[in-house]
Amino acid sequence: MRIEVWSDFVCPFCYIGKRRLEEALGQFPGKNVEVVYKSFELDPQAERNTGQNMHEKLAAKYGRSLDEAREMTRNMTEQAKMSGLDFHFDSMIPTNTFDAHRVAQFATEQGLGKKVAERFFKAVLTDSKDLGDTETIADLAAEAGLDRQEVINILNGTDYTEDVRAEEAEAQQIGVQGAPFFVINRKYAVSGAQPTEMFVQGMEKAFAEEEKQPAFEDLSGNDGATCTDNGCEPPDNQTK
Amino acid sequence: MRIEVWSDFVCPFCYIGKRRLEEALGQFPGKNVEVVYKSFELDPQAERNTGQNMHEKLAAKYGRSLDEAREMTRNMTEQAKMSGLDFHFDSMIPTNTFDAHRVAQFATEQGLGKKVAERFFKAVLTDSKDLGDTETIADLAAEAGLDRQEVINILNGTDYTEDVRAEEAEAQQIGVQGAPFFVINRKYAVSGAQPTEMFVQGMEKAFAEEEKQPAFEDLSGNDGATCTDNGCEPPDNQTK
Repeated sequence: MRIEVWSDFVCPFCYIGKRRLEEALGQFPGKNVEVVYKSFELDPQAERNTGQNMHEKLAAKYGRSLDEAREMTRNMTEQAKMSGLDFHFDSMIPTNTFDAHRVAQFATEQGLGKKVAERFFKAVLTDSKDLGDTETIADLAAEAGLDRQEVINILNGTDYTEDVRAEEAEAQQIGVQGAPFFVINRKYAVSGAQPTEMFVQGMEKAFAEEEKQPAFEDLSGNDGATCTDNGCEPPDNQTK
Repeated sequence: MRIEVWSDFVCPFCYIGKRRLEEALGQFPGKNVEVVYKSFELDPQAERNTGQNMHEKLAAKYGRSLDEAREMTRNMTEQAKMSGLDFHFDSMIPTNTFDAHRVAQFATEQGLGKKVAERFFKAVLTDSKDLGDTETIADLAAEAGLDRQEVINILNGTDYTEDVRAEEAEAQQIGVQGAPFFVINRKYAVSGAQPTEMFVQGMEKAFAEEEKQPAFEDLSGNDGATCTDNGCEPPDNQTK
């Protein structure tokens, strides 16, 4: 099974959804499930760290008081806690995540996509780190096992820009309106940090289908050019 | 697009099929295609290098002369040449590829699956190397960019056994009878080293479908717990 997840590291429901997906995965031990984290920016135009914390930003954006802004995030903090996550909106640093997504692409290529995604989420939502800052990204990526200097080189250049844009374009094409967005086996979609049970049900459906003999459309008509343990068979339409 | 390929490194049509797939991929520059090489053993019971070359093995197996065995492989050598490949059945070493597949699994995890697969194919079919030999596998894997000592540790242990077996079981489950076997987007199957044009047609079909708005079955009913560039929306069924 393959689960694609579009999410952004500054997206609180994305981290909560990640935990709920992981809880669901824990209910299928020994099953082969590949989870792929894909690039999605809530706001590609977001400024880098302006010195405002998340509550100050929310208060300014909606013309509310700081207390009212705190009220807006309370529910998410409580939901996070139920998934064992510790959110700190009072010190959380809103920033632009494009560079972090470029590094996440590199991490996926290196087989470290999941580790780096986890580190980046925790950095923003729990540790109040600035994920738009080059040195911070490099430190976090190195903690997750990437080569720090390679990451610095990527951050100072433009590598992986197209990979990020391609996955964002893919999200747009399949109609993703917000994050997180989960797609199971290119067939079932789950929009949002839904309850763990919904992920479990989606995976059960998908596993049940995988166990049935899949009906591929055979383009080749089985006319040879294959090898078996009994030797190699040339194509039917060629003479030996 | 995602193309899964079940193949074995001692399978001549697998290497030819790999080249034809690559020729087809070359006709879609700039398109995002992920090719994943999966484990398949033509003969899981195959002995390691017994000192026989491929022609001697074929002659013994079918009770033929060496010249008759050469006749059996001539067509494949010619087809290989048309794909720019240089096959040497006279010195090719039949062997057991299970260990090589374990290392290929490690390579995939490290983002080097394609490089290692190419190196292993060339080693057997062109360079007449013994792909059942620990030191040889380690040398080849290191050439492709893996850490030689890590590979030696894997070869001396049992790591990745389950990964190889799981992919072989998957092949059996979807009805793979011989190699190579290609599956495009879990929808279209191509059995054997079919002409390049067949891969092109399969990819065209799959790309056309990807461009249509895919009709995922939405399990969540879009009831919130998502973030957008306009803020985060709690689930509808919860109070703020």
